[in-house]
Amino acid sequence: MSRLDSFIRRLEAQRSVLNWAADFVADKDGLILELGLGNGRTYDHLRERLPGRAIHVFERSPSPNPRSMPPQHLLIVGEMEQTLPAFAARHGAAASLIHVDVTTGVPTRDRVAFAWLPEQVAALARPGALIVSGWPLDDPAFEAVPLPIDIPEERYFAYRRHGAG
Amino acid sequence: MSRLDSFIRRLEAQRSVLNWAADFVADKDGLILELGLGNGRTYDHLRERLPGRAIHVFERSPSPNPRSMPPQHLLIVGEMEQTLPAFAARHGAAASLIHVDVTTGVPTRDRVAFAWLPEQVAALARPGALIVSGWPLDDPAFEAVPLPIDIPEERYFAYRRHGAG
Repeated sequence: MSRLDSFIRRLEAQRSVLNWAADFVADKDGLILELGLGNGRTYDHLRERLPGRAIHVFERSPSPNPRSMPPQHLLIVGEMEQTLPAFAARHGAAASLIHVDVTTGVPTRDRVAFAWLPEQVAALARPGALIVSGWPLDDPAFEAVPLPIDIPEERYFAYRRHGAG
Repeated sequence: MSRLDSFIRRLEAQRSVLNWAADFVADKDGLILELGLGNGRTYDHLRERLPGRAIHVFERSPSPNPRSMPPQHLLIVGEMEQTLPAFAARHGAAASLIHVDVTTGVPTRDRVAFAWLPEQVAALARPGALIVSGWPLDDPAFEAVPLPIDIPEERYFAYRRHGAG
């Protein structure tokens, strides 16, 4: 499998996970949080699958494709180590879907580099919320959830926040 | 269609075109030229589909994924406006497949920014050679060739160099 094949598979897996997550959250109240904007492709996808829903986007330094720039009132710019707790202090555990799309660019490093992140994500998630991530999130508040069948293992991870949904 | 959908389609189209081009050239002599390395994904794909074939890669400033760095003797570093004529002077019209993967990042600008390129490509192509490109190449030496049926229009362009193949 060439790196082009592998890249296409990774993007297809990402799309499948996002579609599945969007279906899960479609009939539930709660905020949707996108942690990491990057080029804006996954944000654009979530936005298209969940029209009318407020999707808050956290990004240290936003530079997406101009067509995928979130509206200013939904874009939280800054280091997530600060902006996530500040958001939690204001909104509480209000999210029904959180997509963790932050990466150092080196997947094996993410779990260490973002060791502080799972706890912050847990503080933002409503009981029963779905959390999807490109790398494993370890927190006592999370229970692993099986992914859709067409997702290659270890490409994506899904969790449910403990408590009634 | 979200930008994620569109991106996946574009990569799938690219892969289809490369597979089709690799099948075309598999039983033909001649060099294979990759104009533009970038991340190295399409180079990696061609290399995998055409094992044992020498693929020369032209790139102004190579910074691919380390797994896709071409061997030094097949990597021609520098401005293509200079390196392509120098290569043609040395090897003549020796290529049976040329993949034009250079872009300014703004597709509508490429045709103007690289107005000098089609003539250089023509000088490198054997009669009957296949040239595939992400944008239209205008040169009297080229004849447009229909693409495989699964390629959306205007995503890729294919040409045959005039003369016996």
